Amino acid sequence: MNTLGKLLSLTTFGESHGPAIGGVLDGFPSGIAIDYDFVRQCMQRRRPGQSTVTTGRQEKDEVEFLSGLLDGVSTGAPIAFIIRNTDQHSSDYDELKDLFRPSHADYSWEQRYGLRDWRGGGRSSARVTAPICVAGALALLAFRKLLPEMEIRAFTSQIGPYSTDPANDMYYTSAMAESNSVRCPDPELAARMEDYIHGLREEQDSTGGCVTCIVTGVPAGIGNPVFDKLEASLAGAMLGINAAKGFEYGDGFMSASQLGSQHNDSFRMDDGRITVATNHSGGIQGGISNGQPIRFRVAFKPTPTIGRQQFTVTRDGQETVMTAKGRHDPCVVPRAVPVVESLTALVLLDQWLTSGK
Amino acid sequence: MNTLGKLLSLTTFGESHGPAIGGVLDGFPSGIAIDYDFVRQCMQRRRPGQSTVTTGRQEKDEVEFLSGLLDGVSTGAPIAFIIRNTDQHSSDYDELKDLFRPSHADYSWEQRYGLRDWRGGGRSSARVTAPICVAGALALLAFRKLLPEMEIRAFTSQIGPYSTDPANDMYYTSAMAESNSVRCPDPELAARMEDYIHGLREEQDSTGGCVTCIVTGVPAGIGNPVFDKLEASLAGAMLGINAAKGFEYGDGFMSASQLGSQHNDSFRMDDGRITVATNHSGGIQGGISNGQPIRFRVAFKPTPTIGRQQFTVTRDGQETVMTAKGRHDPCVVPRAVPVVESLTALVLLDQWLTSGK
Amino acid sequence: MNTLGKLLSLTTFGESHGPAIGGVLDGFPSGIAIDYDFVRQCMQRRRPGQSTVTTGRQEKDEVEFLSGLLDGVSTGAPIAFIIRNTDQHSSDYDELKDLFRPSHADYSWEQRYGLRDWRGGGRSSARVTAPICVAGALALLAFRKLLPEMEIRAFTSQIGPYSTDPANDMYYTSAMAESNSVRCPDPELAARMEDYIHGLREEQDSTGGCVTCIVTGVPAGIGNPVFDKLEASLAGAMLGINAAKGFEYGDGFMSASQLGSQHNDSFRMDDGRITVATNHSGGIQGGISNGQPIRFRVAFKPTPTIGRQQFTVTRDGQETVMTAKGRHDPCVVPRAVPVVESLTALVLLDQWLTSGK
Amino acid sequence: MNTLGKLLSLTTFGESHGPAIGGVLDGFPSGIAIDYDFVRQCMQRRRPGQSTVTTGRQEKDEVEFLSGLLDGVSTGAPIAFIIRNTDQHSSDYDELKDLFRPSHADYSWEQRYGLRDWRGGGRSSARVTAPICVAGALALLAFRKLLPEMEIRAFTSQIGPYSTDPANDMYYTSAMAESNSVRCPDPELAARMEDYIHGLREEQDSTGGCVTCIVTGVPAGIGNPVFDKLEASLAGAMLGINAAKGFEYGDGFMSASQLGSQHNDSFRMDDGRITVATNHSGGIQGGISNGQPIRFRVAFKPTPTIGRQQFTVTRDGQETVMTAKGRHDPCVVPRAVPVVESLTALVLLDQWLTSGK
Repeated sequence: MNTLGKLLSLTTFGESHGPAIGGVLDGFPSGIAIDYDFVRQCMQRRRPGQSTVTTGRQEKDEVEFLSGLLDGVSTGAPIAFIIRNTDQHSSDYDELKDLFRPSHADYSWEQRYGLRDWRGGGRSSARVTAPICVAGALALLAFRKLLPEMEIRAFTSQIGPYSTDPANDMYYTSAMAESNSVRCPDPELAARMEDYIHGLREEQDSTGGCVTCIVTGVPAGIGNPVFDKLEASLAGAMLGINAAKGFEYGDGFMSASQLGSQHNDSFRMDDGRITVATNHSGGIQGGISNGQPIRFRVAFKPTPTIGRQQFTVTRDGQETVMTAKGRHDPCVVPRAVPVVESLTALVLLDQWLTSGK
Repeated sequence: MNTLGKLLSLTTFGESHGPAIGGVLDGFPSGIAIDYDFVRQCMQRRRPGQSTVTTGRQEKDEVEFLSGLLDGVSTGAPIAFIIRNTDQHSSDYDELKDLFRPSHADYSWEQRYGLRDWRGGGRSSARVTAPICVAGALALLAFRKLLPEMEIRAFTSQIGPYSTDPANDMYYTSAMAESNSVRCPDPELAARMEDYIHGLREEQDSTGGCVTCIVTGVPAGIGNPVFDKLEASLAGAMLGINAAKGFEYGDGFMSASQLGSQHNDSFRMDDGRITVATNHSGGIQGGISNGQPIRFRVAFKPTPTIGRQQFTVTRDGQETVMTAKGRHDPCVVPRAVPVVESLTALVLLDQWLTSGK
Repeated sequence: MNTLGKLLSLTTFGESHGPAIGGVLDGFPSGIAIDYDFVRQCMQRRRPGQSTVTTGRQEKDEVEFLSGLLDGVSTGAPIAFIIRNTDQHSSDYDELKDLFRPSHADYSWEQRYGLRDWRGGGRSSARVTAPICVAGALALLAFRKLLPEMEIRAFTSQIGPYSTDPANDMYYTSAMAESNSVRCPDPELAARMEDYIHGLREEQDSTGGCVTCIVTGVPAGIGNPVFDKLEASLAGAMLGINAAKGFEYGDGFMSASQLGSQHNDSFRMDDGRITVATNHSGGIQGGISNGQPIRFRVAFKPTPTIGRQQFTVTRDGQETVMTAKGRHDPCVVPRAVPVVESLTALVLLDQWLTSGK
Repeated sequence: MNTLGKLLSLTTFGESHGPAIGGVLDGFPSGIAIDYDFVRQCMQRRRPGQSTVTTGRQEKDEVEFLSGLLDGVSTGAPIAFIIRNTDQHSSDYDELKDLFRPSHADYSWEQRYGLRDWRGGGRSSARVTAPICVAGALALLAFRKLLPEMEIRAFTSQIGPYSTDPANDMYYTSAMAESNSVRCPDPELAARMEDYIHGLREEQDSTGGCVTCIVTGVPAGIGNPVFDKLEASLAGAMLGINAAKGFEYGDGFMSASQLGSQHNDSFRMDDGRITVATNHSGGIQGGISNGQPIRFRVAFKPTPTIGRQQFTVTRDGQETVMTAKGRHDPCVVPRAVPVVESLTALVLLDQWLTSGK
């Protein structure tokens, strides 16, 4: 239940306010040299407290690798790693112990398990995405060797009312996205998104948004035709991110209003190679990559923790009013960008291995 | 790769023009009486040739159960079933043998496996959803006994430019949806959709659309908090349907432009029970059901097979022009409705069992 | 629960007296030509009624392939196949409906599922091994292409008091084993075993025995080091055969009384290649093949169905006396030989694929 | 590949001389109070350096729990734990870096992964069984609550030429087994085994042995009828223990020379409950528990590391002679006893949960 993947499998563990969070990455190819700086950098991109648009919690997020490496090279044994939880203000959450925060997992978790870890969301905290970024960094390092031409780049394509133009998707670079605190590759739009988030912070409110991900350099023939379709694996993984509410690939929901004659991607020859005239399909046809850029988008709801007064009920069934203390993001989307990239790398490496490539 | 689910697992098999398609449903509870008429009825809803808006292929789709039943009651052994392929016009596909149809799985499959079954799409044909409907019917029969108050109803919520109003989602009934050939519960809209499809048929074109699914009567506490989230399982299953391009639950992509203060669902007391004032979450919080109606939407692209001339390439790399013969739907959406319901039943029963209910 | 394997997975279904038994083999490599005569031959070796030492039931066991093949070549899609149940004498079992046969699965199954298929053992019948032989034949055909030097040969190494000498294990050929009805490669011993079984048939009794399996030509490096060890996969598969009571590999239980200085296999050089002086390890070290012949043995209990009067109880808790009618083997061991070979082929092909070979 | 179990899954990680070993136990029931002293005690039973018959390495083996617990009670989230590696003498292994130790996993691992962790056996060290004991202790604690009448007791039943009498299996208690350093419940035999091991230590040799395990209080109806048979799960788990060479349950290999009329267990009524007159089946029939004591035996080979000179080859293909330094047991069997118990608890709890109990 806490494991993703078939041949390459990531099992994560840990709660927001327990001793540590971490993961075990099993099935990772042997002989891959780990670039620790790269891993740290991937981690830091997800880290809160990076800028004024995200939460104030200062996570140091030092990764300690416990196994699977010899002199910094993967041996084929499972790679376990942990990140200690520090800078915890559990007392911030004391008053949440006996009530259910609206649109959090408090109530549903307690119905599932009969009790819950109320400290900072416990296992349902966004902090559980940190191990995903560590494992994603490892998967990216494996691809650097196995498939060096592949590139995964995600960026913020929407925050509240501000959206990028999908027509530009293929022109945005990682550098453009990383140049600002909201990770939007359009600088003008980024400025507006930042202002919007700052405004919401003052109003004690939060906003949703979208992340778009583009993967280039994936060869044709990766995936499976029925239940383990490449798009189904990506969708399943993305919907596993906290606050994710939707997934679409290629033209996605827009396809619903298209004609077949508009949507179909004609095959063409280009310099002796088979290619397509358009990419409405988003690089996947019938569950299997077709060699074109893979393109998908993930929607995120507004952070449920807001500083405003909200109505809710207590564990013993009394209606009450709460106001969240603690630290929280007005918008998780910029921090979701590296999580989306990491899960993409993990899904693709798993599908690559199971496709026998 | 052709298996869905953990404790309740469905393995399907079969190609469009092979001897038979079918499935094996393992982990199904014992002691469930099979209502064969109900199964047949579920099958028939997916069947093409039901009306003038769908394909002309006449599939009889007689299900034969091979195992797992004694006097019509499930024994706990795997339930295997097959549906013979009849009314096959393989010769319709002869000329497709050596070219790749645009936006079909022909090219990607061949890159994956080195060869492909070119007869009617082979394993990538929409016909592979028939076994899903048989298994889904069985899951529904299990729920009739285990959780009689649960109801799953899906309907066509969009075809091309015509969409239902989400505000009415909870008021639509299955009977309304089943009263017309497009399975849209709004009769006026349904008429327009029918006209639209008829027009497209004449123009040799096709259209996409959306299916909305509502599940009521699911108790709180079904699901898992991280990688096997209820929404992730639903998303993975739905993206496994042919032509599916997107999945969203609750307010979905609309959440991206909402504020936290709008999106959050306040808890309330109602006659001594915990409930919510709104259901933007779509019945799932943190991967686990919260007792509210589960609500999600799936987007489908236009049928890729159209009667118009299209550009493509041959297997040996020659650009060419093709015009599809054979039988094909201008719109798969109405036939996807029972598939969405079936996969929902299968995912919910599996999550119900793994949640130890 | 009815599935074996990870990348290559076999799901079987069917009961002794239902309409059909069969299986779905998923993850099978594409491009393998199916030699139907070979499959039929593998099936027939398992078939009862082959000689006077086995059961009188005449199973025709015609395999029908339903999917995954195009012009007799595997396409990468799941290969489903069925074998119709014919020559059923269900009425033979009528009186078993309400009592529990000693050392059968009747009682434990009913405790597990609340009801059971009492006709001929239902899902617990030895007949469920027939689909394993079909799938095993396919795996052998894949190896013919992928690893032509590999050879799997199993034979009867013990029946009742008669045992072959393990020192000869490497010298026995398949032809020797197949030359007599008990599948013992030592002709003199085979004759005694046959006499022994004929005597037991007259006495309405049965006997246990052992099957030894030798696999040559497996390259070093197949397997996994901890929970999916090659020997653990083999053990798990073999203990899944009806009536199996034990598994050992290499020197097995004899190792318990050996010294390290006796048991250890020294490495040597042989014509520039690394080899070993002895093979007490049985070709596997630390869960991974070492390039030496894999050698293991499986123990089977006597057939529980005997013609003698036995004490037992009825479903409603009355002590009673029963005498089995129906058809039954005095010794299942000769028929288990092809099942052991089939499971070995399936396990090795799965481990080969998951080891990325 | 490093994961055991379906609904209750244990993923282990770590090498002998890396920073830490550990595990993640997922699917563990919520609401179980962890008795840390009990866990420590289970760990210590496996620990080397307990007496003069085992290795001199002093492992402190302090377990640190990282997740899944709140105030010492399980929450339903995955329980991760680590044990730091201390007292490592990696330099003891320097000279092993470039040669393959006989009957170790050195050669096969390197063929599998292209490189290996040569320090103390790396991932193939017996040290990897420590996390199994931690997880096993947790499973036992869950059973204390879920099934308090269940008892698992394993003991040393053979060391070299000394064997207990199976007729006494049911009379031996844990206390008898724990009263001496070899964990043999027969005190006289235990003394002889100790002498035997002391003698072998002086001769720089090692010995194999067997562990017998008895489980009482398991209700009928736990298990699965075909590939996930209870005995198959137990066999697969036991063969995953380092140095295990065989598994048998009930009368095991002895069944091969028995008659059906001897082996069959007649059902009887006892005080209104169904029971059996004998238990040759070992508590499992057709893959499912029948309510009788489960009884099985595991064979272990002699420790491959011996102080004597042995012939082997180097990585670059030179024949050479080696003499092991480092610390090593002349006999692993006494330390395997708690590992067998732990795996039994894990397998039973998983099967219990998947059987829907």
